[in-house]
Amino acid sequence: MLDDLDLKEIVQKVKEKLSEMSGYPKVTINVSARHVHLSSEHLEILFGKNYRLSPLRELMQPGEFAAKETVIIVGPKGIIQNVRVLGPVRKKTQVEISKTDGFVLGIDPVVRDSGNHEGSSGCVLVGPAGGVRIEEGVIAAMRHIHMPVQFAEKYGIKDRSFLKVLVEGERKVVFDRVLARVSDNFALEMHIDTDEANAAGVRSGDKGFILLE
Amino acid sequence: MLDDLDLKEIVQKVKEKLSEMSGYPKVTINVSARHVHLSSEHLEILFGKNYRLSPLRELMQPGEFAAKETVIIVGPKGIIQNVRVLGPVRKKTQVEISKTDGFVLGIDPVVRDSGNHEGSSGCVLVGPAGGVRIEEGVIAAMRHIHMPVQFAEKYGIKDRSFLKVLVEGERKVVFDRVLARVSDNFALEMHIDTDEANAAGVRSGDKGFILLE
Repeated sequence: MLDDLDLKEIVQKVKEKLSEMSGYPKVTINVSARHVHLSSEHLEILFGKNYRLSPLRELMQPGEFAAKETVIIVGPKGIIQNVRVLGPVRKKTQVEISKTDGFVLGIDPVVRDSGNHEGSSGCVLVGPAGGVRIEEGVIAAMRHIHMPVQFAEKYGIKDRSFLKVLVEGERKVVFDRVLARVSDNFALEMHIDTDEANAAGVRSGDKGFILLE
Repeated sequence: MLDDLDLKEIVQKVKEKLSEMSGYPKVTINVSARHVHLSSEHLEILFGKNYRLSPLRELMQPGEFAAKETVIIVGPKGIIQNVRVLGPVRKKTQVEISKTDGFVLGIDPVVRDSGNHEGSSGCVLVGPAGGVRIEEGVIAAMRHIHMPVQFAEKYGIKDRSFLKVLVEGERKVVFDRVLARVSDNFALEMHIDTDEANAAGVRSGDKGFILLE
């Protein structure tokens, strides 16, 4: 299908693209499926007195892990089973679902950064030892990039500023309003949810380019 | 929460944004949920001899309609019920699902423009009168803009070229690789699937801006 002219044009475009991209910092993207962070109080209600989470695998952010434990999310219209619990425990219970999950549950999750539950919905969580109703904390996580201070300083990125991130591929997109989260406790990593991953044709481990202005 | 300085800054930014945008053509975005186009042969197998689709509501593209009829999609891992049939009948049966639907069914849909079934998966469809196995035709529709010739000519857009479309909002994105489809049978309308809509926080009827270069 390719004649010489096409080929020449493609080579030219690829070269332009590479040189264009070389100045932009790369970031590894990981896709967050639905998951739950539990407070120690809720952990005990759902799994039993003095219960401790069992790590299943470490996550990229230092100290964070996917636990062996799962819970059931119950909404007014439906339930979702086998929802992974992430550890360690947090101050407040937080349920992170996609908008698509929201249709199944009958809950429209607000888009919020982690820990910001203002205006968010509640749900019921069920574990092997019991159930708990949370009044708020069901969110669709705002896409974000964890980054160490040194990285942020190198590129002049301020904590909680918004970035643009380009993702190449057949569903190429520029994600705008990507929240920068800067801390020396963080490894460089971008998080998007499954809706965003599917829309952009992204799999965990793919790279994005931070389009600095 | 807003002091005068903030407010001034916001007004300024909105003004800048409006003037920046005013040069770009707007397009109405409609969200395509999963649906099926049937060949007349498959329509008869699924619904009975000499069966005719009953229009439920007209779609924006002239002559196209959502039918009252629904089918069941069966994949190796699961089924999806109540999948809307769109009319009129087409030469080839085509099943349009999201990547998310693909996980439920156990089918990974390739991203293709309508009618291009190269390398696509098959599935089983079930209707009230019977079932049919299709060998190919299950796709995730490539996002696209239908446009009349006059509009395309005005902005120098070629049929089957790729466009960039900006969508404002809390999940602001620039969709790249949006396929232009030019014909005098078309009304100006952009189609994205539910994954893309959720990722960008778009509802049917929202507007996008075509970022001409």
